Amino acid sequence: MSQIWIENGLFVTMDDSNPSFKGHMVVTNDRITYLGTESPQQLEGSVQKVDGNRMVFMPGLINTHGHAAMSLLRGYSDDQNLQVWLEQKMWPMEGKYVDQDTRAGSALAIVEMLRTGTTAFVDMYDRMDQVAQMVLQGGIRGILTRGVIGLCPQDVQEAKLVEAIAFARDWNGKADGRITTMISPHAPYTCPPAYIERFVQAAHDYDLPLHTHMSETLAEVEQNVKDYGVRPVEHLDRLGFFSRPALVAHAVHLHDSEIELLAAKGVSVSHNPVSNLKLASGIARVPELLRAGVTVSLGTDSVASNNNLDLFEEIRFAALLHKGVSGDPTAIPAMEALKLATVYGAKAIWQQDHIGSLREGMKADFIAIDLEQPHFYPKTDIISHLVYSGSGRDVKHVWIDGRQVVRNGECTLLDEEKIRYEAQASFERLLQA
Amino acid sequence: MSQIWIENGLFVTMDDSNPSFKGHMVVTNDRITYLGTESPQQLEGSVQKVDGNRMVFMPGLINTHGHAAMSLLRGYSDDQNLQVWLEQKMWPMEGKYVDQDTRAGSALAIVEMLRTGTTAFVDMYDRMDQVAQMVLQGGIRGILTRGVIGLCPQDVQEAKLVEAIAFARDWNGKADGRITTMISPHAPYTCPPAYIERFVQAAHDYDLPLHTHMSETLAEVEQNVKDYGVRPVEHLDRLGFFSRPALVAHAVHLHDSEIELLAAKGVSVSHNPVSNLKLASGIARVPELLRAGVTVSLGTDSVASNNNLDLFEEIRFAALLHKGVSGDPTAIPAMEALKLATVYGAKAIWQQDHIGSLREGMKADFIAIDLEQPHFYPKTDIISHLVYSGSGRDVKHVWIDGRQVVRNGECTLLDEEKIRYEAQASFERLLQA
Repeated sequence: MSQIWIENGLFVTMDDSNPSFKGHMVVTNDRITYLGTESPQQLEGSVQKVDGNRMVFMPGLINTHGHAAMSLLRGYSDDQNLQVWLEQKMWPMEGKYVDQDTRAGSALAIVEMLRTGTTAFVDMYDRMDQVAQMVLQGGIRGILTRGVIGLCPQDVQEAKLVEAIAFARDWNGKADGRITTMISPHAPYTCPPAYIERFVQAAHDYDLPLHTHMSETLAEVEQNVKDYGVRPVEHLDRLGFFSRPALVAHAVHLHDSEIELLAAKGVSVSHNPVSNLKLASGIARVPELLRAGVTVSLGTDSVASNNNLDLFEEIRFAALLHKGVSGDPTAIPAMEALKLATVYGAKAIWQQDHIGSLREGMKADFIAIDLEQPHFYPKTDIISHLVYSGSGRDVKHVWIDGRQVVRNGECTLLDEEKIRYEAQASFERLLQA
Repeated sequence: MSQIWIENGLFVTMDDSNPSFKGHMVVTNDRITYLGTESPQQLEGSVQKVDGNRMVFMPGLINTHGHAAMSLLRGYSDDQNLQVWLEQKMWPMEGKYVDQDTRAGSALAIVEMLRTGTTAFVDMYDRMDQVAQMVLQGGIRGILTRGVIGLCPQDVQEAKLVEAIAFARDWNGKADGRITTMISPHAPYTCPPAYIERFVQAAHDYDLPLHTHMSETLAEVEQNVKDYGVRPVEHLDRLGFFSRPALVAHAVHLHDSEIELLAAKGVSVSHNPVSNLKLASGIARVPELLRAGVTVSLGTDSVASNNNLDLFEEIRFAALLHKGVSGDPTAIPAMEALKLATVYGAKAIWQQDHIGSLREGMKADFIAIDLEQPHFYPKTDIISHLVYSGSGRDVKHVWIDGRQVVRNGECTLLDEEKIRYEAQASFERLLQA
């Protein structure tokens, strides 16, 4: 039995019944077994004590949309029109990927995510076995899905679907439950309707959730109307997509009726503010989505359109952007912004009973932030400081399933220097290939 | 004679004729005396060598609008309507400030700015002697001005103007030229027209530039029209404001004709994207301002509406926000965003011949950024990495006037622990006073 006692820390729990307090937390194996202002009762067996002074402890952050392996393409193409970026830059490079590149890119992303306080991430890509292997090694929590583009002959479509299902079935629950899986038609504009229906059927057959890109750009919405007579939300609804637990990424261009439908069907949204700004896709109607009761979470998307994986940055953009755009300085207050990346993030991936808040019985996925820094002074409102002044660089330690995966800013299970080197080598090979 | 030789660094110069290269830089006393790919010729006397490997060297960042002493109010009021924030929260606390509070708040701000790579900052506040003292101590470059609110009896107005002029004259050129000064009516809505004219006259008499807040909110613009029959730009122009070198902060709500007038009169703008979003003031028309030839620079405003002083964040917001809002992913490319905080910042404060780029003969105000971090891999486009992935937390060393003011992330001339302690003590006293 492994036990950790965090002594005299400031705890930001994201549990509304007990939002923050100065006190103690005990972790036994992979779970939080005590939280309180008083010292815990005598603990049996050996206990690792952690001095919590000068630190704030909070739930690990949850990144609900990304493509980790694309980390190799950071800075490779910026400030371009979407079509040039995608068709002339991203796709040709991605087409040259071999397993080692996917592994190298995923490893780099996992290092960056862990160091900046992300403890769980959604990943949609191909060669997902490679990504899953890196999740296993890095100690992070992964919600993984093989993203399938269906613009191909029927036999290739068939093979991809079989692969996506096989991956989802093989890996679901692996790594002591740290890995869960979904299945994913890439987007309504890259998958014919009949093909999307096959995914919906498979999701029913194998009891899997669905994930896809939806209504990211106006052009895509207009094309959907042209091709199928309806906008993407109604299109996916007709195809049965929302009859399963579903997480949609982006959801930038929505009418009121579409927001209502997403709320009614319990669809989760991954809001990707930085990526949407960088690619000039638009600004999602997050205040309206939240008011309608939709579960909104945060994603970075890939670094190719971000260009980093620091979820504190998405939190800050979410808190600030929607104030400026709506003209309402009370839109998305600090606590709500922090929830997007924690409790709502957990709910978006159907894991709110395990992660996203610090409560007794929950999984011990938490981070420690160094408070002794000028940008956290004076000590006024800790939630405000985390949202408006904090950064992933302030993260000092990270635990997932009770295991310390980052210590003093360095990953404990991964060789960071080797990973940086291999990412560079992969990128150079892709350039020349 | 003091000499520093930066060996084998990557230099991002912000000089269009030689944007970036791997090589060497020599600093002699307060100036850059050599920049090149080859090792410098034999240097006479003692030379401090700095191993530049794994680091990028670039000009220090320039923050063109802020109120340093308000650092004490970080997190004290967020997510509020502007009037509540200002009238019920900020003004009552600011009204209780004594000299020690201004000093404590300014010191905290200077520590945060230096550590995050800002080497020059514009500050508009009162008790400016205290701010100037801290600039002297901290080794930073300050462009300082006593901001005057003129909603008071004529004798008080008179005393404030005298004080503002005296401060500007006493301190201009002090600290080996690191301090320059301006004079500042706070805003058209807080100073009667006749009073603003007194500042304009004084600016002529004493050869000083002018700084003010302008067109930050729509309400303020509409009130200006109601009170004076014209919008703020025309109002200030009629009062002669633009007959002097002038820097205006915010400039959010502008018509095309106002942009043209600012361009024609050579007025500099301090764009404060985070503050404008947080207070829901709106989104400045930065792409249009730049196209018109207006010098646009970046400011944080105070931490009470930000809530941090990391100028890398303003750079990133400027690069991303205007893409998303305009729908044009090529708006404000990375290099242009970086210029806002360097060359354009220097031009905005009329110091482009001294600072803002690395060139032989320029002042040695520069920063070193640690590149051996996952978010800077793979090594592709360094400008993109700085803008879209970089952070003030990546700054390792800072030099101003050839003197190292930050070493390994810590201020060399200031006692950071004492400053944090004093900021906390001041805040607690203000709360109780």
